Amino acid sequence: MTSRTTLANAIRALAMDAVQKANSGHPGMPMGMADMAEVLWNDYLKHNPSDPSWPDRDRFVVSNGHGSMLLYALLHLSGYDLPMEELKNFRQMNSKTPGHPEFGITPGVETTTGPLGQGLANAVGMALGERLMAAEFNRDALNIVDHYTYVFTGDGCLMEGISHEACSLAGTLGLGKLIVLYDDNNISIDGEVPGWFADDTGGRFEAYGWQVIRNVDGHNPEEVKLALQSAREDAERPTLIQCKTLIGFGSPNKQGTESTHGAPLGDDEIAATRQHIGWPHPPFEIPADVKTGWDARERGAAAQSEWQGLFDRYAKAHPELAAEFRRRMSGELPDDFGAACEAELQRIQDAAETVATRKASLQALNVLGPKLPELLGGSADLTGSNLTLFKDAKGVTPDDVSGQYIYYGVREFGMSAIMNGLALHGGFIPYGGTFLTFSDYARNAVRMAALMNQGSIFVYTHDSIGLGEDGPTHQPIEHVASLRLIPNLETWRPCDAVETFAAWQHSIARRNGPAALALTRQNVPANERTADQLAAIERGGYALVDGGETPQAVIMASGSEVELAVKAAAQLGEKGMPVRVVSVPCLDRFMAQDKAWRDSVIPPSVKARLAIEAGVPDSWWRLVGDHGDVVGMTTYGESAPAGELFKHFGFTVDNVVSRMESLLG
Amino acid sequence: MTSRTTLANAIRALAMDAVQKANSGHPGMPMGMADMAEVLWNDYLKHNPSDPSWPDRDRFVVSNGHGSMLLYALLHLSGYDLPMEELKNFRQMNSKTPGHPEFGITPGVETTTGPLGQGLANAVGMALGERLMAAEFNRDALNIVDHYTYVFTGDGCLMEGISHEACSLAGTLGLGKLIVLYDDNNISIDGEVPGWFADDTGGRFEAYGWQVIRNVDGHNPEEVKLALQSAREDAERPTLIQCKTLIGFGSPNKQGTESTHGAPLGDDEIAATRQHIGWPHPPFEIPADVKTGWDARERGAAAQSEWQGLFDRYAKAHPELAAEFRRRMSGELPDDFGAACEAELQRIQDAAETVATRKASLQALNVLGPKLPELLGGSADLTGSNLTLFKDAKGVTPDDVSGQYIYYGVREFGMSAIMNGLALHGGFIPYGGTFLTFSDYARNAVRMAALMNQGSIFVYTHDSIGLGEDGPTHQPIEHVASLRLIPNLETWRPCDAVETFAAWQHSIARRNGPAALALTRQNVPANERTADQLAAIERGGYALVDGGETPQAVIMASGSEVELAVKAAAQLGEKGMPVRVVSVPCLDRFMAQDKAWRDSVIPPSVKARLAIEAGVPDSWWRLVGDHGDVVGMTTYGESAPAGELFKHFGFTVDNVVSRMESLLG
Repeated sequence: MTSRTTLANAIRALAMDAVQKANSGHPGMPMGMADMAEVLWNDYLKHNPSDPSWPDRDRFVVSNGHGSMLLYALLHLSGYDLPMEELKNFRQMNSKTPGHPEFGITPGVETTTGPLGQGLANAVGMALGERLMAAEFNRDALNIVDHYTYVFTGDGCLMEGISHEACSLAGTLGLGKLIVLYDDNNISIDGEVPGWFADDTGGRFEAYGWQVIRNVDGHNPEEVKLALQSAREDAERPTLIQCKTLIGFGSPNKQGTESTHGAPLGDDEIAATRQHIGWPHPPFEIPADVKTGWDARERGAAAQSEWQGLFDRYAKAHPELAAEFRRRMSGELPDDFGAACEAELQRIQDAAETVATRKASLQALNVLGPKLPELLGGSADLTGSNLTLFKDAKGVTPDDVSGQYIYYGVREFGMSAIMNGLALHGGFIPYGGTFLTFSDYARNAVRMAALMNQGSIFVYTHDSIGLGEDGPTHQPIEHVASLRLIPNLETWRPCDAVETFAAWQHSIARRNGPAALALTRQNVPANERTADQLAAIERGGYALVDGGETPQAVIMASGSEVELAVKAAAQLGEKGMPVRVVSVPCLDRFMAQDKAWRDSVIPPSVKARLAIEAGVPDSWWRLVGDHGDVVGMTTYGESAPAGELFKHFGFTVDNVVSRMESLLG
Repeated sequence: MTSRTTLANAIRALAMDAVQKANSGHPGMPMGMADMAEVLWNDYLKHNPSDPSWPDRDRFVVSNGHGSMLLYALLHLSGYDLPMEELKNFRQMNSKTPGHPEFGITPGVETTTGPLGQGLANAVGMALGERLMAAEFNRDALNIVDHYTYVFTGDGCLMEGISHEACSLAGTLGLGKLIVLYDDNNISIDGEVPGWFADDTGGRFEAYGWQVIRNVDGHNPEEVKLALQSAREDAERPTLIQCKTLIGFGSPNKQGTESTHGAPLGDDEIAATRQHIGWPHPPFEIPADVKTGWDARERGAAAQSEWQGLFDRYAKAHPELAAEFRRRMSGELPDDFGAACEAELQRIQDAAETVATRKASLQALNVLGPKLPELLGGSADLTGSNLTLFKDAKGVTPDDVSGQYIYYGVREFGMSAIMNGLALHGGFIPYGGTFLTFSDYARNAVRMAALMNQGSIFVYTHDSIGLGEDGPTHQPIEHVASLRLIPNLETWRPCDAVETFAAWQHSIARRNGPAALALTRQNVPANERTADQLAAIERGGYALVDGGETPQAVIMASGSEVELAVKAAAQLGEKGMPVRVVSVPCLDRFMAQDKAWRDSVIPPSVKARLAIEAGVPDSWWRLVGDHGDVVGMTTYGESAPAGELFKHFGFTVDNVVSRMESLLG
């Protein structure tokens, strides 16, 4: 039988050769973690290379994503649809082997990693997803959901703050099937870590309530195996396995140094490494016995087939649950979702309630939450402010995971990345709340949701100076404009209860990208709408007040400032100036409409265009054009009651009227 | 003598009354931490209410900034220029008592807090600043720098990831004069914390190498005093004092519950509390003996006077050092700074080197670093990529703090907030590097620097798809545009070595706000400039290629895309179309120029305007106007060599020429 070391050397060779060929990449981590990967993948990992979407596969996350060649080597060797040609094209345009692992590009990649710490947090979300789905669907001895989440991580991830947020919560929730292998190699990019990272990481994780297995020789398969066994046996606690390794293991002159981290070893050192580890084969050639030793297709197919048998028995005993499980994992919405939403939208329109949009959001959740068990809420310790806990929802605890709500604690970034992990795991549409200002704390996780086409929904309340007395640290100014810049994120800022419900409806219906909902603390009035107008909300921008056949001017606004626009238009109308009001609850959507729609809403012939938004004006210059103006903010806010702040910063009907009169000359 | 409890009750009364009067605010923390504050302020804190800028004062940071009324009460009672009228105006427009403590508004407030975790990280920066200044300036027994940094913190700060980043580094660096008092009250906004925060926080901090003093009764002054004494005696380790408290202590029906956290207690409960704690005085009335018990003016003046005597002896023995200390603490630059920069700028202009702007940045630092000992560099573990370590700079270690460089580890957010703390402490112009994409991780600290008018300089390299093979997770797309939205932040994206040096020069000269420098990984060519053009860089945008007296078109660009603009303009010129090239290294500055300058650079009569930037186009629509166009990106990047990516996304001379020809019809 081919030795474990030889099997691991296949990873080392592929990594160093692919990086050398690309003249770019990170050989150190794959060479250092190859032995751990070999034990995990060959002895424990439950997966089927022929079906990367098998719902009950173990999840494997490379949080130190720069070690992408480790993952590509594993996927190739074990039999995924990732031919050697792709490894030869590492880091080239249109390859399936980009510089960092990217979800959706490469079969078997569970999440996009590279931004350090987030893969680990995604994995916490996946392990949480497993726990929740198991509790919801498993019946009798038919455990159709029963898999582990394994994570590879390095010093970088563990220095990042998000590792604290995610791992503290994982410990609190007792996610026993989360197993983290820590590449404790004492090296980060700047050199030997004790100069900047002297933590007793094991002690830290014990303080989180984890099982910690210390001092495992990461190059000794037997030690790694024993550690994995202990990790799997502890059902109550997540496990950190601290594996002592040499970065770039096998490179005789460079191993153990940061020089192996992020650059090719060079032809000479690669030759020396081949010699040193006893790998005489040319680049990208894998001997037959090594191929056989890695090939997991047969074993994987058998495992999945066994699971399928289990699932078939389950489906026979619990046909409705089985159908629901399939629906949940496929991400399909219930058939009646659209119709139910339309009825509710009309009901809200008719009710014409004056209400804060955060409250309208809660009302929407009260309707949607019970209909959609996949809707999994939460807040970063602002539940009563974000109004994210719908009626009958309850919090998940270590002892009772039947709730539809996660108390994430004060962990905005961790929450957001855990939400992405829940979405990636399947079975959930996660949403989570914080104040809009603190979207800053989580911004890169929002970006990652967008990059991965995941439908996480970020609920951001207190969306302007309308927050009032808490002052400038808590008043978002640049945030709505800034979120709009993130490609593939849809940012909604609804003006009333109707648009708020629509924002939820369309964000839920959109399963290939995230949404940010910016919601008011303060009340906003209801607006009248025809059926056409109701339907037009989906387009992101529409004429809310028509202004007659030939409006002289257009006022556009979002959120709480639509009220000002409507009132100013009424005054201007009374003065004989017909003004159209355009509500823009989702500027991203509006700009994505065809020109015909956009021109029908904002006629190009109308040059007097004014935008109003209680934030930086930058989003609006394109729409108002050369002759237009924006009532916005260019400074931070102040601590004072909201009403005074709106006046102070010029968000008054009088100011809007006067600014429009200036435009009209 | 007035009892400690009575003195503490003055804080409780002021907090509950001010919150009630404002009908907004957070009484729970001030009431819970009043006893700890009383011991710290009356027995230990070295400060002089009459001179909040005394360089050797202890720094006191309320990281749980929602407890602002605690701080305002302390400042008022101890004798700062914060009259009772201001406390009555808590959270009102133009008061000196905003909802959260704001640096620059209230005398004695050391940093703006509220965004959780950042105050703690600022404090790490302050303690680091003290350590470095002490090592640099203290001589013989003349310790002109010798003060503590005290922090109040709650569960929220300790759940935030940034607390991990900052406290791990503080432990590694052995910041023994950092003392953190943890309000361990078991409550956060969503209720009792064990449901989401079950950490053994003491164990966690021990894992960071801190001294941890556990189980201190935060309402027992003797226990608090003993703990503070032990904390002060440990010179090698920062200390965490875990004080068990009741949130809202003194409120008979609400203490110990989250209901006291963020809302007025209500008139009835306030009356009951008065009764319960034995505080019969009307709102905002402090009896004479309590006033006397708190008044720290005499003690403070004596302490400062003693220090002044020490400093005078120091100045006599070391007159040059004393002058330099004064200069450093006042934030003044050396007299010859401007002249030296201008000479260097001309030298770089003449050298006409083709170089990556990150490399040009290092060259600038090689010149500026040795001249400016206040320049304190660092990187979040990307030193060799960010090129932030100038020659002869060396890293600060626990044993040798003589260096001008901090190895921050993989801690972007912690680094940025620590930088802000260094700036606030005085004596330093901190800069720190990471990849531009990971500015996301630190975004709120950048905002806080801007809000506090602090001159931190954020060095962001690898500023576009020019980063190449690392792929979309590492390629900034929306980041430059997004940083430009932060009020009072200046974002520079220089096009060559000359503009890079100018960016450094002006960012250093600007001491009342932060800068972000977006720098290329890849080489960019030098551009020719007249003396007027060199001087115009300071204005943020200027004509780099004039295009003759009547240019038909304008191409504007920043950073690496200026090269494309210049080449395209040359081609169009050859075709008989005179085109002006406008280089915009700092759009914020350009937009802040008067209209005359802006119109002289981009003549309003020229309607054919094209902008080029390898990122989202949104910053440019206003400048290109209704008839203009932008060559930008609206999707994420790809993993491939940089040259291919620029071609793929349309950043070619041919495409720019053709887009401009379309504009010219």
